[in-house]
Amino acid sequence: ADVKAGRAKAVQCQACHGIDGLAKIPEAPNLAGQTEEYLVKALKDFKSGARQNDMMTLIAKPLTDADIANLAAYYHSLGKQ
Amino acid sequence: ADVKAGRAKAVQCQACHGIDGLAKIPEAPNLAGQTEEYLVKALKDFKSGARQNDMMTLIAKPLTDADIANLAAYYHSLGKQ
Repeated sequence: ADVKAGRAKAVQCQACHGIDGLAKIPEAPNLAGQTEEYLVKALKDFKSGARQNDMMTLIAKPLTDADIANLAAYYHSLGKQ
Repeated sequence: ADVKAGRAKAVQCQACHGIDGLAKIPEAPNLAGQTEEYLVKALKDFKSGARQNDMMTLIAKPLTDADIANLAAYYHSLGKQ
């Protein structure tokens, strides 16, 4: 997975989750340092519809497997600072 | 919500999420410092079946609203250290 590509893709995520992975709205989770496997599963489940959320269903739909891997790697990487 | 009561209840959570809120298995999310509102929603969704996970469905089923509020307050509080 490509952390830099994940950071670029994360412009879509930042209004709610922050580019720093710290939630900007109370109903969104922090993502900084989150386990990578959990983040991949969350995005795949939103994409498939296995997990439902109005915003995340829309956002996840067009993501490729590479996008998902890169985003998970990026947000996971933020916990190491 | 009662953080100490949440810590006591979190003995059920620690094998996967840690009593410190740091995941002990790769497929579990870290919970330390997670937004409280998100944690409450996650537990309520697992309890209701709106969100599906074999382990969490079993664990969340018997939780009361007070248990959920206390657990969310406890894990949220761990981010402030």
